[in-house]
Amino acid sequence: MQNENIIKDPNELLEKLDNLHPSDIAYSLKKIENESEDDFFYVLKTMPDEILGEVLLELPDNLREAAYEELSIEKLTDAVDELESDDATDIIQEIEEIDREKAKEIYEGLEEQDKKEIDWLRRYEEDEAGAYMQTELFSAKLKETIGQSIKRLKEAKAEDALENIHQVFVVNDDKSLIASILLEDLIIFDFDKTYEEILNEADEYKYKPFKVSDKTHIDEVAKHVEQYDLSVVAVVGYQDILMGRITSDDILDVIEQNATEQIYQLAGVDEEFEHEDNLINTAKKRAIWLFLNLGTAILASLVIGLFDQTIQAYVALAILMPIVASMGGNAGTQTLAVMVRQLALGDIELENAKDAVKKEVFISLFNGFLFALIMGVIAWIWFDEKLLGLVIGLSMIVNLFSAGFFGASIPLILKKFKIDPAVGSTVLLTTVTDIVGFFSFLMLAKIILL
Amino acid sequence: MQNENIIKDPNELLEKLDNLHPSDIAYSLKKIENESEDDFFYVLKTMPDEILGEVLLELPDNLREAAYEELSIEKLTDAVDELESDDATDIIQEIEEIDREKAKEIYEGLEEQDKKEIDWLRRYEEDEAGAYMQTELFSAKLKETIGQSIKRLKEAKAEDALENIHQVFVVNDDKSLIASILLEDLIIFDFDKTYEEILNEADEYKYKPFKVSDKTHIDEVAKHVEQYDLSVVAVVGYQDILMGRITSDDILDVIEQNATEQIYQLAGVDEEFEHEDNLINTAKKRAIWLFLNLGTAILASLVIGLFDQTIQAYVALAILMPIVASMGGNAGTQTLAVMVRQLALGDIELENAKDAVKKEVFISLFNGFLFALIMGVIAWIWFDEKLLGLVIGLSMIVNLFSAGFFGASIPLILKKFKIDPAVGSTVLLTTVTDIVGFFSFLMLAKIILL
Repeated sequence: MQNENIIKDPNELLEKLDNLHPSDIAYSLKKIENESEDDFFYVLKTMPDEILGEVLLELPDNLREAAYEELSIEKLTDAVDELESDDATDIIQEIEEIDREKAKEIYEGLEEQDKKEIDWLRRYEEDEAGAYMQTELFSAKLKETIGQSIKRLKEAKAEDALENIHQVFVVNDDKSLIASILLEDLIIFDFDKTYEEILNEADEYKYKPFKVSDKTHIDEVAKHVEQYDLSVVAVVGYQDILMGRITSDDILDVIEQNATEQIYQLAGVDEEFEHEDNLINTAKKRAIWLFLNLGTAILASLVIGLFDQTIQAYVALAILMPIVASMGGNAGTQTLAVMVRQLALGDIELENAKDAVKKEVFISLFNGFLFALIMGVIAWIWFDEKLLGLVIGLSMIVNLFSAGFFGASIPLILKKFKIDPAVGSTVLLTTVTDIVGFFSFLMLAKIILL
Repeated sequence: MQNENIIKDPNELLEKLDNLHPSDIAYSLKKIENESEDDFFYVLKTMPDEILGEVLLELPDNLREAAYEELSIEKLTDAVDELESDDATDIIQEIEEIDREKAKEIYEGLEEQDKKEIDWLRRYEEDEAGAYMQTELFSAKLKETIGQSIKRLKEAKAEDALENIHQVFVVNDDKSLIASILLEDLIIFDFDKTYEEILNEADEYKYKPFKVSDKTHIDEVAKHVEQYDLSVVAVVGYQDILMGRITSDDILDVIEQNATEQIYQLAGVDEEFEHEDNLINTAKKRAIWLFLNLGTAILASLVIGLFDQTIQAYVALAILMPIVASMGGNAGTQTLAVMVRQLALGDIELENAKDAVKKEVFISLFNGFLFALIMGVIAWIWFDEKLLGLVIGLSMIVNLFSAGFFGASIPLILKKFKIDPAVGSTVLLTTVTDIVGFFSFLMLAKIILL
């Protein structure tokens, strides 16, 4: 679908700008930059301000940063001026990280109203609903007629000051949000009626607004949007005062981002440092995780060291012992992935967690016995020693059971202590499955074989 | 946010049904079912048909199936009748899986128009856009005035036949989709104008519809929606004939579901079999993956077996060898997670994959040298043997390098052969890091130490 809209010639791209979505322009620019950085900057500098801002937002991080450095303060100020409040704030903050002075000058060049909104939005923590909301929205007062409000909408749209409007937010004299009426309902009403009349005639719950507080964590907002299948949610402050709105496209990004973070965390990767220009920083961040893992591996080695004489007497043990640890690790990873994801999705909660643990223990015991049998027979035939089969079989049961039990419990315990279950549970679990795996196998061998 | 809307008393819940979102009713029912299955069925059987269908859709899988079995054919038919086409089709198909005869009788009891739509939607494969679309939408003809079309909208809404309307889809006499006008634009037009007039006056690209073909893979549709920040996308068939639409809440579910599948696949879990009532089926599915892993582990053991005399001569090797394999496995998992996720998000494509491989190789070499140093010194001191430090250091470099190189290449190769990179790449990579880890360590030991 993308390909038809990609234009690799700079001048052709500039000609067709009006017919292209900013996302397509950004994608074309990415291709152009691959060929020539000069052409890339040429197109950026030549395109109209009202397109530039939107395109910047769609560029990959590294190209956007390059653009911040290359474009003039005037050009950037004009581009930011055209953006909605949340996007304008994001860009100013990003430029600040690269060049504090430049960001300040751009901010100074904005209109007073824009400055105020940016000041306001900047106060929020980056994971609060307020940091994701845009302040541009369509609202109306109780005493206003629908026709009057639509006239205002028309004017705002003529100035390109409003888009993506799904509903009108009705506020009282204190600016508190009291109703939300979808445009599909609004369009069929008598335009001469006031909002107050409409609301009085309607069922009490019909226009009840979906709202979140500006301090709500964005993940909570995402759950709210998913649960009620919303395309827009209102953001309110103290005493339900209407502050802004968050649209479903922002929520989509949040969900995608959260999933990425979860996958990375389970694998011991810190998402934030993966896009660094300096790869050494990325490598160092990954090294921290590997360092923790090294600790686990050394612990496991110490356990093996306890049995050095057993191994010397019976070298088959050294050959077989990684199998038990590896099977435990894998079975544990299965359990962990299911638990972490279900906890994140809210399918498992702490109160009904017992069932989940029971399920995982059942599965791990089932597979423990299954692979005890399989591996027991293999070891018996391989080394022609029945008792060796018994040892590895018993140790498989013990280790797969503990993989299931701890794979299910560790995320729950972390969650109980308000630690993100995706962070750190892998390394804790590996410690358990490695140590239990090596210890049970070698200890049983010492008792049974020698 | 959820708690205020949860009602655990069956009769209180029935009284307040009209004021609750179906999602909240379903959540309350889940709590009620925990206490008493009878109360759960009592509420379901007593609630009005137009609510029942929506609530069924929001119930967890196992409760929904219980409801399909318990509710009468008449009740289910009436509930399905109230649903939108895509949801009605889903429910009929789900009942079919439990009780083919019951599903058939429900289908027979529906209105002719509903039957036709269900017949149509059932033809699609489960991952095609057509299977996700709803056929209910607001469309208008070129010659129609806006006022006339809004009158139709009003009638449809009065019958509860249309909701979630964001735009009007304008079609020509052949029913081909030619424009999409958002309600926020429509509401400010002169209602006496025809759509043809509106379109002639406007810029060619202003009302260009975002559309996908009914045969498009749903993941492509999700990318399209994300890329263009859409709340609705039109679904068209042969010659752009308008077939239906997909809303952003469905796309949200697709994205969430895909992320879950990806996390599970990387951990060797088949999402589809995780919600089985019979845990033995879940256990068996997980066992398939563990079986593959057992093959890998045995391969690694065979490698160790090649060096049994070396180990017997020098038992410290048995103690240290899991460290090298474990570090390789973990570094490889980091690389794999990043590659698989970036490929899924489209941030890495096959054409620019070389940069990604270079990045991963750089990082793995950096960490290879770092941990060679750390572990080399530890091994030297631990066993008071300089050469043992050298052996484990060299082997750490070799194994972390191959972890980075293969961790980056395996997903790309799978993708090239059109195999999902998340499926199977973990087990392939573990095979590499285990074999390279054990072989390099023991081989170097044999050469250097003995």
